[in-house]
Amino acid sequence: MKILALDSSGLVASAAVVEDEVLIAEYTVNYKKTHSQTLLPMLQAIKDMTELDLSTIDAIAIAAGPGSFTGLRIGSATAKGLGLALDKPIVEVPTVEGLAYNLWGTEKMVCPIMDARRNQVYTGIYTFESVKEESGSACSMKIIKEQCAADISEIMEELNKLGKPVVFLGDGVPVYKKIIESGMKVDYCFAAPHCNRQRAAAVASLAEIFYKEGKAVDAGAHQPRYLRLSQAERERLEQENGV
Amino acid sequence: MKILALDSSGLVASAAVVEDEVLIAEYTVNYKKTHSQTLLPMLQAIKDMTELDLSTIDAIAIAAGPGSFTGLRIGSATAKGLGLALDKPIVEVPTVEGLAYNLWGTEKMVCPIMDARRNQVYTGIYTFESVKEESGSACSMKIIKEQCAADISEIMEELNKLGKPVVFLGDGVPVYKKIIESGMKVDYCFAAPHCNRQRAAAVASLAEIFYKEGKAVDAGAHQPRYLRLSQAERERLEQENGV
Repeated sequence: MKILALDSSGLVASAAVVEDEVLIAEYTVNYKKTHSQTLLPMLQAIKDMTELDLSTIDAIAIAAGPGSFTGLRIGSATAKGLGLALDKPIVEVPTVEGLAYNLWGTEKMVCPIMDARRNQVYTGIYTFESVKEESGSACSMKIIKEQCAADISEIMEELNKLGKPVVFLGDGVPVYKKIIESGMKVDYCFAAPHCNRQRAAAVASLAEIFYKEGKAVDAGAHQPRYLRLSQAERERLEQENGV
Repeated sequence: MKILALDSSGLVASAAVVEDEVLIAEYTVNYKKTHSQTLLPMLQAIKDMTELDLSTIDAIAIAAGPGSFTGLRIGSATAKGLGLALDKPIVEVPTVEGLAYNLWGTEKMVCPIMDARRNQVYTGIYTFESVKEESGSACSMKIIKEQCAADISEIMEELNKLGKPVVFLGDGVPVYKKIIESGMKVDYCFAAPHCNRQRAAAVASLAEIFYKEGKAVDAGAHQPRYLRLSQAERERLEQENGV
């Protein structure tokens, strides 16, 4: 099975190809250029470097939100375009789950925090469990709290109640580090540089599992999940309600 | 601090830049092209995409061996050339440690196995420990067994004696999977696709720690660590000894 994955949900633009449980290529850039300038050239570079015939992929995985509205639209539009042109399904990976999957195998609580502005983060709580198999074990991710938009204080309170060690990761870490340091009552740490931001390889890896579970949609049906209203929608609502 | 890292120790060619604990770019290809064709174009692509001024990097990190002899020579020659031209030091990251660092935060024993042919693997045993800090914890990698060339049966025996759950990763996994499945007496699993092969980002991330500990060498002094004799050297010795 071959999965092409894209993640442009945050500051990072990332593209990856996973085939039969091996990463064939990954290209990740975390730089000020907009994703509309980077994502397709990166995919093209991977395609050229690995002589990838796009018609051989089984599905296109996309970090489907939440995240930057523009970033999600660029990612989803690219995935839909490819899906429609190639007649391939789309595997929608919730952005926060994809980010948590970076820390595959950790036994702590994994808490991604993406800066959502307006004092909020896109977050969730995850953990990895060993599942006994015929020979050895498999390690699978379990959702403790589904991805959501929340105040940083709310998620910290929930983690303190759970009472277990936590690893934080994501672009919300530099923004909320001081608040975390002063408010956490359980042991915590921050993920290392190679696993603390979005990676399309993690999205592809998780998508391989989702695909086998039958969780793929038609390219035409795919829509990003914003989790919140856009600024324009919010302002219109506020005007209509006379706020 | 800005670290440029290269890993061409195995089938994978990978280049990455980490700056102040954030991954700026990573490009990884696991495809049949030889590293002499891929590594520099990949570095050039990262340089262009992130408008990287090479004179601003603090050090060049290299997966310094063991690994494929040709791969190591390509990586080390590239790192030495860049180091000499830019007058920057080199941080030598033992290949097996860099590979183990992929699984940052795992509490199991981490056992990378790289196929070394002739029924051997390049391997080692590592674990991650929480180290209490003023606020929260840091997670640091501890070496249980230094990297070495060994028979797969030897390393399995050592893991069985340690008696703790193990995660295997590396290009030796598909080669030795059946032997592992029949010989392991403790619980074990195999790492997921996004973290089971060499990544220059993990090398950069570990090199950032080494650099702060003063572990950098002059570019002129750097040499890869092969851990074994090359085929040519071995055959000459055998001839000289009349084997």
